[in-house]
Amino acid sequence: MPGLFKTTERSDKGASFPLADALSSLKYNSDGLIPAIAQQHDTGEVLMMAWMNKQSLQETLETGRVCFWSRSRQKLWRKGESSGQIQRLKAIRVDCDGDTLLLSVDQTGPACHTGRKSCFYNLIKDNEILVESEPLIDPDTLYGK
Amino acid sequence: MPGLFKTTERSDKGASFPLADALSSLKYNSDGLIPAIAQQHDTGEVLMMAWMNKQSLQETLETGRVCFWSRSRQKLWRKGESSGQIQRLKAIRVDCDGDTLLLSVDQTGPACHTGRKSCFYNLIKDNEILVESEPLIDPDTLYGK
Repeated sequence: MPGLFKTTERSDKGASFPLADALSSLKYNSDGLIPAIAQQHDTGEVLMMAWMNKQSLQETLETGRVCFWSRSRQKLWRKGESSGQIQRLKAIRVDCDGDTLLLSVDQTGPACHTGRKSCFYNLIKDNEILVESEPLIDPDTLYGK
Repeated sequence: MPGLFKTTERSDKGASFPLADALSSLKYNSDGLIPAIAQQHDTGEVLMMAWMNKQSLQETLETGRVCFWSRSRQKLWRKGESSGQIQRLKAIRVDCDGDTLLLSVDQTGPACHTGRKSCFYNLIKDNEILVESEPLIDPDTLYGK
């Protein structure tokens, strides 16, 4: 049902449609991936952006624990499987044209592999880039190096 | 300077580096694009995700008005050029590995072409997808149809 997100564009608030139609209308890129933004549910902080394929999205919906697709490792990436810093899913939203996901999550500890809460710690400020935050946990501790 | 974001991983809070080195270390995809998430600066609401190329990022930094690259139209997309609903840039952050941008913006009216504040209005809820919000402005009015 490729037209579902075209339909919801003009739908009233409160209208609902079968999830299966929405899932089959998602637009994956040529690698079969869709970007997924993770936002901390209570603070609104944007934690990270990663990618999902159909299988990782399905697993995330079934288990309530966020699972991405790792492009570097070319395998499912159950967030926190190495570090213990998992993401519990609170809600998923799909954008107007069905090609981006917004995950509302409860992040255990840091989302970032550097040990920082969020991956977005490099601030462009005037003619410099400024490191804005410290790690919550030393990454050597997180990954047991 | 491809290693700058590797350097900032281990940098202390407050460390700063030349912007030019950061910009030349950004990782664009094979189409020369980098994803850019736009977040309303005061409410934390995630409004949309779109793409930038080098030129649109440069223009955004220079003018303080957000400019994306439109993949469908294959041209610069000065957000609001048709609808009048522009995005003023408050801050830009780069993620840990330099392949995603987070824009803190002040959005005039709706960010979404459907007239809704945010593009993420399709909520996955149980076995359905639920339309969560109404347009602020009728899209026919926005685009003068």
